[in-house]
Amino acid sequence: MAPPSEMARPSEALVIGVDFGTLSGRAVVVRVSDGAELGSAVHPYTHGVVDRHLPGRSDRSLPPDWALQVPGDYVDVLKTAVPAALRAAGADPANVIGLATDFTACTVLPTTEDGTPLSELPEFAGRPHAYVKLWKHHAAQPQADRVTELASKRGEPWLRRFGGLISSEWEFAKALQVLEEDPEIWAATRHWVEAADWIVWRMTGRYVRNACTAGYKGQFVDGSYPSEAYFRELNPEFADFTTTRLDAPIGQLGDAVGTLTEEAAAWTGLHTGVVVAVGNVDAHVSAPAAQAVAPGQLVAIMGTSTCHVMSSDELREVPGMCGVVDGGIVPGLWGYEAGQSGVGDIFGWYVENCVPASYKERGEDLHQVLSELCADQPVGAHGLIALDWHSGNRSPLVDHELSGVIIGQTLATRPEDGYRALMEATAFGTRLIIETFRDSGVPVEELIVTGGLQKNPVLMQIYADVTRMPLAVLDSEQGPALGSALHAAVAAGAYPDIRAAAASMGRVVRGAWTPNEANADRYDALYAEYLTLVDYFGRHGNDVMRRLRKIRREALR
Amino acid sequence: MAPPSEMARPSEALVIGVDFGTLSGRAVVVRVSDGAELGSAVHPYTHGVVDRHLPGRSDRSLPPDWALQVPGDYVDVLKTAVPAALRAAGADPANVIGLATDFTACTVLPTTEDGTPLSELPEFAGRPHAYVKLWKHHAAQPQADRVTELASKRGEPWLRRFGGLISSEWEFAKALQVLEEDPEIWAATRHWVEAADWIVWRMTGRYVRNACTAGYKGQFVDGSYPSEAYFRELNPEFADFTTTRLDAPIGQLGDAVGTLTEEAAAWTGLHTGVVVAVGNVDAHVSAPAAQAVAPGQLVAIMGTSTCHVMSSDELREVPGMCGVVDGGIVPGLWGYEAGQSGVGDIFGWYVENCVPASYKERGEDLHQVLSELCADQPVGAHGLIALDWHSGNRSPLVDHELSGVIIGQTLATRPEDGYRALMEATAFGTRLIIETFRDSGVPVEELIVTGGLQKNPVLMQIYADVTRMPLAVLDSEQGPALGSALHAAVAAGAYPDIRAAAASMGRVVRGAWTPNEANADRYDALYAEYLTLVDYFGRHGNDVMRRLRKIRREALR
Repeated sequence: MAPPSEMARPSEALVIGVDFGTLSGRAVVVRVSDGAELGSAVHPYTHGVVDRHLPGRSDRSLPPDWALQVPGDYVDVLKTAVPAALRAAGADPANVIGLATDFTACTVLPTTEDGTPLSELPEFAGRPHAYVKLWKHHAAQPQADRVTELASKRGEPWLRRFGGLISSEWEFAKALQVLEEDPEIWAATRHWVEAADWIVWRMTGRYVRNACTAGYKGQFVDGSYPSEAYFRELNPEFADFTTTRLDAPIGQLGDAVGTLTEEAAAWTGLHTGVVVAVGNVDAHVSAPAAQAVAPGQLVAIMGTSTCHVMSSDELREVPGMCGVVDGGIVPGLWGYEAGQSGVGDIFGWYVENCVPASYKERGEDLHQVLSELCADQPVGAHGLIALDWHSGNRSPLVDHELSGVIIGQTLATRPEDGYRALMEATAFGTRLIIETFRDSGVPVEELIVTGGLQKNPVLMQIYADVTRMPLAVLDSEQGPALGSALHAAVAAGAYPDIRAAAASMGRVVRGAWTPNEANADRYDALYAEYLTLVDYFGRHGNDVMRRLRKIRREALR
Repeated sequence: MAPPSEMARPSEALVIGVDFGTLSGRAVVVRVSDGAELGSAVHPYTHGVVDRHLPGRSDRSLPPDWALQVPGDYVDVLKTAVPAALRAAGADPANVIGLATDFTACTVLPTTEDGTPLSELPEFAGRPHAYVKLWKHHAAQPQADRVTELASKRGEPWLRRFGGLISSEWEFAKALQVLEEDPEIWAATRHWVEAADWIVWRMTGRYVRNACTAGYKGQFVDGSYPSEAYFRELNPEFADFTTTRLDAPIGQLGDAVGTLTEEAAAWTGLHTGVVVAVGNVDAHVSAPAAQAVAPGQLVAIMGTSTCHVMSSDELREVPGMCGVVDGGIVPGLWGYEAGQSGVGDIFGWYVENCVPASYKERGEDLHQVLSELCADQPVGAHGLIALDWHSGNRSPLVDHELSGVIIGQTLATRPEDGYRALMEATAFGTRLIIETFRDSGVPVEELIVTGGLQKNPVLMQIYADVTRMPLAVLDSEQGPALGSALHAAVAAGAYPDIRAAAASMGRVVRGAWTPNEANADRYDALYAEYLTLVDYFGRHGNDVMRRLRKIRREALR
C-alpha cells in the first residue's frame, strides 16, 4: 500500500529514520516535504538474539528466559543500512538534515562513564550480565515480583501509573538482577542505559535519556524517580540506583540531542551537520507516522507481539496498562501504552508446530493457506474459543505465568479452525484492552493498525468485527522508520512540532476495514465467553496455569 | 504377546468366535481345551460406516451425526472370514462344536416379522431410517434428552441403574427418532433388533434377545421394561414400543440359541450341528477372555474409545455409569459398564491434524514417533493439562456436548508435549471412572487392559502411574473374538460355565506394567487439577462448551 518510491530530487531536504528491531535494523530515507520514502535498507544483527551462549563461547549455555544482544550489532546497522538506504534512494548525503532512531524497549545495557558497553571490555566479555538485556529477557521475574510487591506494600504513588504492576522486562528488575547475580558487573556499571539512548550517545557523543523510556521503563514520574528509601528496602546495595546509574538529562521526543560526530559521520556516509533527535521506542514512534497524535487515536503495532499506544488529555489509572507518561508519545499529552505479549508469535508457533504435512501441499505460506481456508467460516462455526496467552499476558493482567488455552476441540476440528480461534483470541485481547481504557475513563475513538500483520485481510476483518470499529491502517511497510524520520525532521527544525510533521509526513488510510454488524453481534457472544475465561484463568478463579508452571519448573529441576 | 499359532490337531474340539467391529468382522478358530488361537481372518464391511449417503445414492446426503450400516455386510463376514479362518487354522470343520459372536452396541435395526431388514425391502432402500443405526449414530440426541428428562421427572426407578442418564446411542432414543422422523418406516417395523441378536437370528432361525444388550441398551431391568405409561408420555404413538417391537425371549450369556441353519452352514462351511451362542457385546465378551470374571476385576478395552466392564456382587448406584445389569457380563453377578467416548480416536485426530511435516521425517508411524519423543519426559515437564472430551464424555458425565480442552501451551510447547498431555488426560479419565466406582461402594481391585492401545508402552506406563495400579494385559490380539469363542465352548457344553471356560481358555499377563511411585505422586498433583477442570467445564461451573456447540449449530444453520 506504500506509494511507489520516487527518486530523490536535487537539493530537497531529506531525513533518515533508523528502526532498531529485535533481529535487524532498518534505515529509510524520507523526503521532508511530504514523507515520501525514497529508499531503505535492512541489516540483520550478526549475533541476533543471544539466548543460548555468549558469542564465541559455545561451551557456556545461558539459563532459560535469558535474551541478550551485542551492542556492536547496532553500530553495524549505522555502518551498512544507512549508506545502503542512501544509495537505494539515489540521495545526495549533503541533502540530509536530520536522523532519528527508534528501538525496542526496555532494551538496556551497562556501560562505563564514557558509554563503553561492559561487554566490550575484555575482562567482562565472558560475563552474561555485561551484555545488553533485550526487551524479552524474562529472567528477572523474581526481582520484578519484589519491585511490585514492595511498591504496593509501601503504597508508592507512582505504581498506579503502571497499572499496579512493574514488568520483569523493565529497567529496575533487570538492573536488580545484575546487582544480585553478578555484583562485580554491577560495581563496574556507571550507566544503566537504554539502547535507544545509547545509540544516540554513540552518534552524538552526548547522553540524553528520552522521556519515553525514562517514563515507561524507568518509572520517571512527574519529574522524579522512586525514592532512595524504596530502593534501599528492595536491596540496601540498590539504594543509590537512580542517582548513580540513571543520572542523565531527560530529552523530549522530537528534540535535538546534537549532531553527528566525525566518527558517526564516517560510519553513515553523512556530514557532521546532520541533527540527531532524542531516542524513541519503535511502538511509540509509529503513532505520528500514522497521524495518530490526537487524544483517542489508539495505534496497534501488530507484529510478533502487539503494542498499543494512545495519547490522551485525561490522566486516569488504567488497570494493567504498561504505563502512562507525560509526553510519552507526543509532548503535551499523556501517552498510554498497553500490549499483548504474543500475537504473530502465536500464529508462528501454531504454523510451526500444529499444522500437518498435508497442508504444506496447499501452498508455500502456511499463514496464507490457513487464513484462506478459514476466511469464509461463519463466526462461531469452528466451535472453539482460545486464550491468547501463549507468551503470557501483558495488558491488562501483567502476568507472564499465564499460558494458552483452547477449548472446544472435537474430532472434527481442523487446523484452520484452531488458527482462526487464535486470531480471534488476539482480537478479543485487543478488545479487552480497549474496553479497559474506556471503563477507566480514557476514551478510544479510533483504531489504527500498523505492523506486519496488517497484511492479513482475514485477521484485519476479524479485528474490525470483534472491536466493532472501523480500522485505519498506516500506509507504509516501515512505520517505525517513517516515524523516526518524522522526528528527525522536527529535531532538525523543518517542522515546528510533531503534530505539524505528522500532518505533512504521516500517512494513514481511514476505513480500510469496516465491521460487519452481523459478525460483530456473534462475536459479542464469544467475547462474553472470553471474558468469563479471562476471569477464571487470569484473575484467580483457578490458578492452574501458575501451578502448571511451578510443576514444570520442579519437573525440570 | 499372543502365543505362536499352532495347527489344528485331528479330532480335537474347536470353536469359532466372530467379532463384529465398526469397520470389519474378524473370525478366529480356537481350541476348546486351552484357548489356543489356531487361525483367524478379517473381512472389511463393503459399505463401512454409512455417514454421507446411502449405498448407490450419491445424490442423497445424510445429516451430521448420522452413522448407518448395511446388514448384508455382516452376513458377508460369515461367508468369507469364517471359511478363511478355518483354512488358516488348517482345521477340519467337522471338529467345530460351537460358534459365538460379539457386536458393537447399541447397533440396532428395524426388521419385518421374519427378521428381514427393512433396508432390504426395495420400497425402503432409499430411506435412511430403514438402515442399521450404528452405535455412534448421534442424531437422536433430542430424543435422548426427552427420554432422560421424562424418566427423571416421573422418578422412574430404573433410571438409577444407568447413572441417571440414557444415551442417545441406545435403543429408546434411536427408535423414537425413527417414529418421529419417518413414521412409515416405524409402522413397518415389526422388530427393533440389536445387530448382536439379528446375526444370531440369521444363523439359527431363532430370535433371542441377549441379556447384555437388553439390559444395558434396552433398559430391561429386574425382568421388565419401563412402563407403557412412561412411553406414552414420551410420545403417544410410542406407548406400545416394548410390547410390539422388543418382544422376544431373553437369553443369558453363554447359553445356546440353537444350531446353524442349512443356509448358515453353507455360508460358513460348517455343519448344521454347530451350536450358536446367545449374542454378546464386544467389550463385555472380552472380560472372560482376560479371565476377569470375579468381582473387582475392571477390564479396559482400549481402542478408538475405551469401554470398561467389571462384575461385582454389589448392586450400587454409580453416577454416570453406562449401566449395571444382572448377568450383564457373567451370569450371577452384577455387570457394570462405563466408558470413555474418545481415546485412540483422539490420538488419531491429533496425529492427523496437529503434527507438523517435520515429524514425518522421523518415522512412518507418528504415534510411535511422538510416544518415543515424550517417553522420557519427567512428569509435568510439558506444563500442560488436557481434558479428553474431544468426543464428549460418556462416564461419568454422560454428556456429548462436552469437548476437548488443552491448557498451558506456550511458544515452547512441542507436538510431543500435546500428545503426552492427551495420553495423560485419557488416563485421568480412567482414574476418574475407577474412583467413581470406589466412591460408590463398588471396589476396583485390578485393572486389566486389552485392545489395540495396549501395544503402546508409553501409554501403558502412564496408565499404571496415573491409576497407581499394576496393569494386567489380555495376552491376545483378538480379545473379543477369543471371548466369543469361549462363550461358544460354554454354549456347546464343553465347559459347565463361563468361569470354568475362562480358567482354561482365557489368557492374562499379570503385572505387565507396574506404577513408578515417584511419577504416581506427581500425577496426583496433576489429577487434582484435572478434577477441578472436570467440575468447572463438565459439572456446570461454566457451561461454555455447551454454548459453543449451540453457537456452532446456529452458525452453520
